Amino acid sequence: MIRHLVLFKLNEGVTKDDERALAGAKAFAELGSLIPELREWECAWNTTERDIAYDYAINSLVEDREALQAYLTHPAHQAAAGLWREFATWVIADIEV
Amino acid sequence: MIRHLVLFKLNEGVTKDDERALAGAKAFAELGSLIPELREWECAWNTTERDIAYDYAINSLVEDREALQAYLTHPAHQAAAGLWREFATWVIADIEV
Repeated sequence: MIRHLVLFKLNEGVTKDDERALAGAKAFAELGSLIPELREWECAWNTTERDIAYDYAINSLVEDREALQAYLTHPAHQAAAGLWREFATWVIADIEV
Repeated sequence: MIRHLVLFKLNEGVTKDDERALAGAKAFAELGSLIPELREWECAWNTTERDIAYDYAINSLVEDREALQAYLTHPAHQAAAGLWREFATWVIADIEV
């Protein structure tokens, strides 16, 4: 299986209570039940203050690369990512587990 | 519980088959059985080529903030992180799950 991890950094000047950030977090929270390929789905704001801490994270699990692609191209995921693109950047890693 | 996620980026010019990187990955692979506070422990090289992809990731789960602190300050973790500091940088996020 593939664990798909994403760490988000809010753009300079954007805070967690920004309306766009709230809408983005809500959109991600709903993805777990919308996309059948997601075997596991956790997403939430970071809770630790450290210089190297990013602001928000997704931990997801899919069966294989085909399922990962189905998730990435799913309209609900594309819409949620589109929201985040307005106020954040992110990095990813996909690991075999 | 707290999910502690870490994404690592190899320094410019360092590759996955660098001896230091191999030793660093081995050290992390062993942590899961060495540190009792780790409820879940996955670590591996990233498998996706994308501009936003980091090179290596850790997905771990601990009971609470005290357990997270015990993990972070554990000598085996400190030693492994010390290895990685020589050839990589990383970002983290801790989310409540």
